[in-house]
Amino acid sequence: MRHLLDIQSLSSEEIHGLLNLAENVKEILYRPIPKVPTLRGKLVLLLFYEPSTRTKFSFERACKVLSADTMSFSAKGSSLEKGETILDTIKNLYALGVNLVVIRHSLSGTPHFIAKHLKIPVVNAGDGIHEHPTQALLDLLTVREKLRTFTDRKVAIIGDIKHSRVAHSDILAFQKLGASVFVTGPAHLLPEPKEIPFFEVKPGGFKVCLKPREALQDADVVIALRIQKERHGEAFIPSLREYAQNFGLGPRELEWIKPGGLLMHPGPINWGVELAHELEKYPFQVILDQVENGVAVRMAVLLSLLSGE
Amino acid sequence: MRHLLDIQSLSSEEIHGLLNLAENVKEILYRPIPKVPTLRGKLVLLLFYEPSTRTKFSFERACKVLSADTMSFSAKGSSLEKGETILDTIKNLYALGVNLVVIRHSLSGTPHFIAKHLKIPVVNAGDGIHEHPTQALLDLLTVREKLRTFTDRKVAIIGDIKHSRVAHSDILAFQKLGASVFVTGPAHLLPEPKEIPFFEVKPGGFKVCLKPREALQDADVVIALRIQKERHGEAFIPSLREYAQNFGLGPRELEWIKPGGLLMHPGPINWGVELAHELEKYPFQVILDQVENGVAVRMAVLLSLLSGE
Amino acid sequence: MRHLLDIQSLSSEEIHGLLNLAENVKEILYRPIPKVPTLRGKLVLLLFYEPSTRTKFSFERACKVLSADTMSFSAKGSSLEKGETILDTIKNLYALGVNLVVIRHSLSGTPHFIAKHLKIPVVNAGDGIHEHPTQALLDLLTVREKLRTFTDRKVAIIGDIKHSRVAHSDILAFQKLGASVFVTGPAHLLPEPKEIPFFEVKPGGFKVCLKPREALQDADVVIALRIQKERHGEAFIPSLREYAQNFGLGPRELEWIKPGGLLMHPGPINWGVELAHELEKYPFQVILDQVENGVAVRMAVLLSLLSGE
Repeated sequence: MRHLLDIQSLSSEEIHGLLNLAENVKEILYRPIPKVPTLRGKLVLLLFYEPSTRTKFSFERACKVLSADTMSFSAKGSSLEKGETILDTIKNLYALGVNLVVIRHSLSGTPHFIAKHLKIPVVNAGDGIHEHPTQALLDLLTVREKLRTFTDRKVAIIGDIKHSRVAHSDILAFQKLGASVFVTGPAHLLPEPKEIPFFEVKPGGFKVCLKPREALQDADVVIALRIQKERHGEAFIPSLREYAQNFGLGPRELEWIKPGGLLMHPGPINWGVELAHELEKYPFQVILDQVENGVAVRMAVLLSLLSGE
Repeated sequence: MRHLLDIQSLSSEEIHGLLNLAENVKEILYRPIPKVPTLRGKLVLLLFYEPSTRTKFSFERACKVLSADTMSFSAKGSSLEKGETILDTIKNLYALGVNLVVIRHSLSGTPHFIAKHLKIPVVNAGDGIHEHPTQALLDLLTVREKLRTFTDRKVAIIGDIKHSRVAHSDILAFQKLGASVFVTGPAHLLPEPKEIPFFEVKPGGFKVCLKPREALQDADVVIALRIQKERHGEAFIPSLREYAQNFGLGPRELEWIKPGGLLMHPGPINWGVELAHELEKYPFQVILDQVENGVAVRMAVLLSLLSGE
Repeated sequence: MRHLLDIQSLSSEEIHGLLNLAENVKEILYRPIPKVPTLRGKLVLLLFYEPSTRTKFSFERACKVLSADTMSFSAKGSSLEKGETILDTIKNLYALGVNLVVIRHSLSGTPHFIAKHLKIPVVNAGDGIHEHPTQALLDLLTVREKLRTFTDRKVAIIGDIKHSRVAHSDILAFQKLGASVFVTGPAHLLPEPKEIPFFEVKPGGFKVCLKPREALQDADVVIALRIQKERHGEAFIPSLREYAQNFGLGPRELEWIKPGGLLMHPGPINWGVELAHELEKYPFQVILDQVENGVAVRMAVLLSLLSGE
């Protein structure tokens, strides 16, 4: 593995390898001094062209725990204001001694483009509506911790499947480890028939459901997606109230899933829209476990890409 | 002490404890390598929702000296742009491994609200027009260094008392250690009679003076407040020139105070408004001592809240 | 050397001293763990009032390699929004324990002004249209590495000489080490006759050429300047296409210079304007060497100003 660009090009062995490593290094986070010198002297560049709290901080925290240095870069206040291309910027940062680039960009494919031109590892922290591979890895880690196995598990994903890079990575990731993925949401935000072959990793492993109940029934895991008000918003969803009524999860919907089924959300949550407020107390809600596992997974990604150097 | 939210809820013992600790650790700043490993591996989150130079840098510097890691967060470029509530943001940052939160917010009471919901210590770095406790602590430390005792000292505060969180914290803090506080300023920017019981910590320890001379006469310490042009500005003060004439300090006003009386200002100073330019050379002006003591005081606060963990 | 404010006030011995030091410390960058503890506990303030990628990151990287702490400061989100003067801001940051200030400012002379009022070293990272001394030092280091000597070398600089702080520092620097400098560009962007005495360090060492060919003919080094579209732009240059045609460098122009002559550019490059796209593959193009040497040179500057403390 030279880069982490997407889930699509990872084998199930590679995925399990990363999860095992994440599980191993996670204990470092609970030490009195959560710091190891493994990546001392390495320089990680955090290039976030889109807003982010948890992903950016999660990578930053992973770097600090592993003693890597970080430099952050945003389009504002940089030479991008002077019209420099992203490739020239990155070549220059490489000449300055950067060892790995983490990039989030609104344009699908940007990390792949950069990886083609750089001699150092590139990690995709979310590219447009394409993929968000570290999110899928932390979702997998959370499910593995709670449910141990993936084989024959049913994972339901509800929301704007079409535009969600989280959904895309999760759909591919869960199937690769043996689960089946059922997606549901407003009809016009579901994948179209011609897109299905792309999402179906194992035969019958992927199903598009018009009715939420079909997706949720007996699910082992349900992942509610964030309604991205800021990306396309009102244009795609007639009203948040209507969305909440039809595709928001509440106690009633959670009775459809398996007893002990997990409730997940990539965050940030619009409470009262995707999730009813009372679900904060649902005993198998694991949303902050996801956040915590995000650090462990990113430590594993940095270690596999950098420590072999 | 689990948090540092305000001066109001601190006992004089707790305040003296923090000042003693600050005095002890201050020498670290003068070592050839001003760095100790005490808080190694601790992660401090700096949440500044309002502009700040010295307070933010002072906390940052205190963290570096104690070897704590920091992560900075501003409303711009974060998930707050996606509509996330401050509480969800902080719960997430907590799940990412943050050990302490320093917060400045324009809304009075925000740090208290957060403290109620978080298991980690919260430090108020200024909340609305309420309090700014670390500023009061550094003011106390500066006075203690120069004048040794607080009992029967007279402290004068001049400016917009009503809207100044610095004034509010100082009024409470100096009285708690035995001094009396006299405040003055434009009549409409002074506390109203019904507010006085809140500010009077010891009987007769607090007085509102309409005439600056009454407050300044024989004062041991005079604290000029910053005119916050950017907060309410022209609306409250008819003209800066008029303010300077009536409530600005110059050589004439400083003759009213005790010989050797200290001149303080929380900064940033509007020279020529709150303070005449020639006061920069006043021998008992201790404004940069305040800044320096800010680092020592914040080191003490971080240590008491984190090292017991 | 107490500060690094400009090339003009440096002697050739001081310049050689800095280059020797840079050459010595450069190997640290290639170690498996590129980090030495030399400046541990030192605090470097990076004050960038103008956009920057490579210069800011280069200083940041130099600090990390030498184990100095950094604090970054921009006009946004700071007390400058409250109307504080730059001098008050810096005095405060000094009281907070800063050991050295790196400053970039749009106003020529700002670093000199600050240096006059501060007891700590100041490094000019570019001031208005005046000088950019660390850029000249890294240009010198790159030429010395490739060509060994400066005596009787011909250096050609092409572009907006009048407004380029890079050109100004390079013109002075190369002459001080024995080379001659020929400048060319659009007639109205060349130095006026009365300015020439300022630029001529050694008799006959500086020449203004109206025709590019005269400057480029048999040059050992050619430095293309960036067209600063964002600073004065269209107002000064009728059209980018016309500029590219008359003053852009391409394969034809490079045949005029000496075989093995170096091609340099301070970046960021407007490909297709200052440089034809095919020049990216010109074998003696050393633009990323310049970037890399930037780190070594800045390490040398920080070390000479701080380690003697």
